[in-house]
Amino acid sequence: LAVSAQAHANENLLELQENPEYWSTQLGNYQGNRFSKLDQINRDNVDELSAQWQFSTGVLRGHEGGPLYVGDGKLYIHTPFPNKVFALDLEDNGRVVWSYEPDQDSRVIPVMCCDTVNRGLAYADGRLFIGQADNTLVALDSEDGEVLWEAENGDHTKGESNTMSPLVVGDKVIMGISGGEFGVRGHLTAYNVETGEREWRAYSNGPDEDVKLDPEETLMMGEPVGEEDLGETTWPDEEWERGGGAPWGWVTYDPELDLIYYGTGNPGTWNPDQRTVDGEPADNKWAITVFARDPDTGEAKWVYQKVPFDEWDYDGVNENQLIDVEIDGEQRKGLAIIDRTGFGFLLDRENGELLVAEKFAEETNWADSYDMETGRPNVNEEYSTWRQGVDVNTTDICPTAMGAKNMQPSAYSPETGLIYAGINRICMDYEPYEVDYTAGQPYVGATLNMKPAPLQDENGMEGRMGSFIAWDPVKGEKVWEVDERFAVWSGALATAGDLAFYGTLEGHLKAVDIETGEELWSFKTPSGIIGNVNTFQHEGKQYIAVLSGVGGWAGIGLAAGLEDPEEGLGAVGAFSALEDYTELGGVLTVFTLPDA
Amino acid sequence: LAVSAQAHANENLLELQENPEYWSTQLGNYQGNRFSKLDQINRDNVDELSAQWQFSTGVLRGHEGGPLYVGDGKLYIHTPFPNKVFALDLEDNGRVVWSYEPDQDSRVIPVMCCDTVNRGLAYADGRLFIGQADNTLVALDSEDGEVLWEAENGDHTKGESNTMSPLVVGDKVIMGISGGEFGVRGHLTAYNVETGEREWRAYSNGPDEDVKLDPEETLMMGEPVGEEDLGETTWPDEEWERGGGAPWGWVTYDPELDLIYYGTGNPGTWNPDQRTVDGEPADNKWAITVFARDPDTGEAKWVYQKVPFDEWDYDGVNENQLIDVEIDGEQRKGLAIIDRTGFGFLLDRENGELLVAEKFAEETNWADSYDMETGRPNVNEEYSTWRQGVDVNTTDICPTAMGAKNMQPSAYSPETGLIYAGINRICMDYEPYEVDYTAGQPYVGATLNMKPAPLQDENGMEGRMGSFIAWDPVKGEKVWEVDERFAVWSGALATAGDLAFYGTLEGHLKAVDIETGEELWSFKTPSGIIGNVNTFQHEGKQYIAVLSGVGGWAGIGLAAGLEDPEEGLGAVGAFSALEDYTELGGVLTVFTLPDA
Ligand SMILES: O=C(O)c1cc(C(=O)O)c2c(n1)C(=O)C(=O)c1cc(C(=O)O)[nH]c1-2
Ligand SMILES: O=C(O)c1cc(C(=O)O)c2c(n1)C(=O)C(=O)c1cc(C(=O)O)[nH]c1-2
Repeated sequence: LAVSAQAHANENLLELQENPEYWSTQLGNYQGNRFSKLDQINRDNVDELSAQWQFSTGVLRGHEGGPLYVGDGKLYIHTPFPNKVFALDLEDNGRVVWSYEPDQDSRVIPVMCCDTVNRGLAYADGRLFIGQADNTLVALDSEDGEVLWEAENGDHTKGESNTMSPLVVGDKVIMGISGGEFGVRGHLTAYNVETGEREWRAYSNGPDEDVKLDPEETLMMGEPVGEEDLGETTWPDEEWERGGGAPWGWVTYDPELDLIYYGTGNPGTWNPDQRTVDGEPADNKWAITVFARDPDTGEAKWVYQKVPFDEWDYDGVNENQLIDVEIDGEQRKGLAIIDRTGFGFLLDRENGELLVAEKFAEETNWADSYDMETGRPNVNEEYSTWRQGVDVNTTDICPTAMGAKNMQPSAYSPETGLIYAGINRICMDYEPYEVDYTAGQPYVGATLNMKPAPLQDENGMEGRMGSFIAWDPVKGEKVWEVDERFAVWSGALATAGDLAFYGTLEGHLKAVDIETGEELWSFKTPSGIIGNVNTFQHEGKQYIAVLSGVGGWAGIGLAAGLEDPEEGLGAVGAFSALEDYTELGGVLTVFTLPDA
Repeated sequence: LAVSAQAHANENLLELQENPEYWSTQLGNYQGNRFSKLDQINRDNVDELSAQWQFSTGVLRGHEGGPLYVGDGKLYIHTPFPNKVFALDLEDNGRVVWSYEPDQDSRVIPVMCCDTVNRGLAYADGRLFIGQADNTLVALDSEDGEVLWEAENGDHTKGESNTMSPLVVGDKVIMGISGGEFGVRGHLTAYNVETGEREWRAYSNGPDEDVKLDPEETLMMGEPVGEEDLGETTWPDEEWERGGGAPWGWVTYDPELDLIYYGTGNPGTWNPDQRTVDGEPADNKWAITVFARDPDTGEAKWVYQKVPFDEWDYDGVNENQLIDVEIDGEQRKGLAIIDRTGFGFLLDRENGELLVAEKFAEETNWADSYDMETGRPNVNEEYSTWRQGVDVNTTDICPTAMGAKNMQPSAYSPETGLIYAGINRICMDYEPYEVDYTAGQPYVGATLNMKPAPLQDENGMEGRMGSFIAWDPVKGEKVWEVDERFAVWSGALATAGDLAFYGTLEGHLKAVDIETGEELWSFKTPSGIIGNVNTFQHEGKQYIAVLSGVGGWAGIGLAAGLEDPEEGLGAVGAFSALEDYTELGGVLTVFTLPDA
């Protein structure tokens, strides 16, 4: 293993990211742009793209994340539980150079809300990192797969598990936690990249000290937060202790500002009535909040709560894309979110000010708009599950608890200035009910039913539940949209070849014209795609690679063998037609153009 | 469902077989030739072949057999246990038209010797037939997958299971049984195609009546068998009752002679000492025997025992290819076998006379040759595990208990007159030990160790364990051979496009020049291939289709998660390097040429 100075890992990763031939982090770069400068595969020749070799992982359930390539001739992939890791030889059709299979306590599986997924490996400086389902964070030697260290990030008996991909920043590995549906107390933790020692942990709720928030210093909408301990006072009793806000999504990083960005999940329970203070809605801070933190200390630089007092499970973990934009002739350091709420946000990533909040899914009806002064949504009382009341079924709320976009990461092309995202066009009925807390047991408190969102125009596809969109983050406008039968649960890719790529739950990998959305190529992989489409170049040849293997929340019926429509928190019913198209099974497919 | 007269199913199947666009039986035709007259994909363009769509079956263990196409726009596929069946829409990238998943007793799994494989569906006249692992033979309506009837073919508590593909002949469905390693008494049974009622059952051992053998009528080497009840008298005590001879391989059929052909498996136990009579080797009839039977009555027309008194588990089930040949200027109705024993046999299929017996795997040393008068092998005492004795490790016997060729069906091109087969080039150490019989428990009585066969010439690939050969069945000569790292466990295909296809345990599907064996194209499918390569034409386009998904006896280490080299009857050690190439997972891949 190479020697590693303090910031070595960081520098190494920055260097790798600058090389367009590599794909060194799950989101393609620190900024989360999932954009590649490669253009060997392009608009003109993509119809000749074909599968070159494949590798079945031997694991059935949902395969999220994607392969990493850091220039050493190997592709690194991982699987859902049991979280195998494979190093595959690019020059020998994916021969297994080494493999790693941890011995994990399978009792963690019942506390994984949304399939036994894992969003993938992180790499830095000769090390691979994976957050195992059982809350063990592991560092492997990328040469031979030997375990370098292990760290304990959580406790499954309290409902904690790991699904997210760690991110290496400086000399730290940053890792969140899952368990919002089990009343965990969300936390983000930094581990020493060399030793695995814990450096800091910032909770999503509770006293300021635990949240690492200084009310005098930490900004909210450009001003100091002001009030103390909002993470405690905006909850009834000790409810913050089981208040969720699990950061299970993506972390991005601005190397210049030296800030990391991530969002926290929904507050627990899904029954808002149990989260009021003195009978009135309370903000339940800091659930569903974007945090900007100093990666070295964990201190919060600014916060923005997207949904105070969540009544719909609008988990706020979606990736924060760091993009540089021009607004009114001025260059701004932006942060864009295609959010679960159905709103496309643009924030100033220096101070957390809200710049744009517009609907990207027209059916969105829980809020009409955002108040740009306060940054708070103008909630539509008709769809307020709290106002409608406990044990009342509020119908036709859009979007669903899955959000108008879930964890599938979007792409951003600096060339077009647009964001490309697979989204969900689904609405729900939501009936909250009183629920008791028991450690390690579901703490949900709502029954859901999901259905396709009503069509907004006559060009739409009947009964479609998803689409792939191009979004102008500055104008807050949709530029084009391609309807899909099911929610699009795969991560997007944008390339300098004028292409955007995404996968469908039926299993199609698609390439569309980045300007128009016109489908230029498609291939039906072995199973539904919930992984991310990545690209890289090796020995002068550009490759596209993706993990197929249906599952995740949308595919939980297939993944866990559930049949009752209300199971899977309403997903089973909505996605029952998936079995007409696909079955389980994880496979990596590597595509390329035929030799000239 | 169409009305069905007596011979309707038969006629329908004959018609389908004559249409080169279809692939209506597992072996391509009744004769077992696995030859296609299609030549759209050929020597000149095969390098452009590429995957068009894929379908993961959602089942991990070894996928044997292949897809059927009978002209109705659907591909029919099946899986290993739990023996799902899928009808996939060829015009919609394999959309699931219907699927069937039986509810099976998983307690059958421990009595399946060599992975939970299934060699596939049979089709006739709107019905599909599958022999479920749990010994239920099922008829499905091919339109909608509804169960038409079920028949009970065996009892897993006695060690019986089903892995083979049924064959429809006339108004009967012919089905064998597995369990040679559990002391079953082998049987072949005919069921009524309409009702599932049992029409006849012929045992492999025991009294003539049960064997359906008439010593005055049934021929052996062209003469009547003569002696009575050899199936009883060639065994000690009541050993024939647990004498194995399970017919678990392929059945072929000559419509003109109206005879079916199949082979019986090894005698139980693998310890020959327990099968002597008066301390002397006994024939243990009718294990490892080719039977020609009348499909209507089950009566044996002729028998040929390839290995009397087996001392190596040379299970005699390999497919009997029916080929018409010219010998010394005379047209003969031949029956060719690339046999487990390492010998390529040619028999007269009218009377069972042995015409040719030559080694196709040079290392073969258990016998030097066959006596063409008696049809018996000239056994080499050095490698006689009985002569070497109980608890003695006889080393370097070739081939292994896997045979120089296992169940993977070969192909025959009437254009070249050659047989194309994936074979095994492995040798073994074999140590017999005394074993007691308990119903439903392994009745093996030998410990094995396997290793690559020594190279015969300096052009060979170091440490290779298999190859793909072209064999002249009349001359008894190998025409060409392509070395492979592992045993070739997939079924071959020969086409009028001057191509032969086969799959490798690493997962490569390969097309070679039928004249020379030169590799013209290869694609690494998601997992090791133990299925059969099939071809068909739909809407003017020729397709190649194959199930990948490693397993079977060779892949049992991966399939069942075994690690001790002696487990899997010695296969685990020999094939341990497989994990450097592939993991489990069943996927159908459909290949075609790009649109012109
Ligand atoms: O609150 C949580 O802790 C939590 C965790 C996860 C997860 O870790 O997968 C999901 C969710 N929530 C969730 O709300 C959600 O929509 C979701 C979808 C998925 C997925 O992988 O498809 N995971 C999760
Ligand atoms: O004697 C039997 O009953 C029996 C059954 C089977 C089977 O049904 O798969 C195999 C064998 N024997 C056997 O000897 C053998 O080599 C073998 C290989 C395989 C396979 O599918 O890879 N099955 C079997």
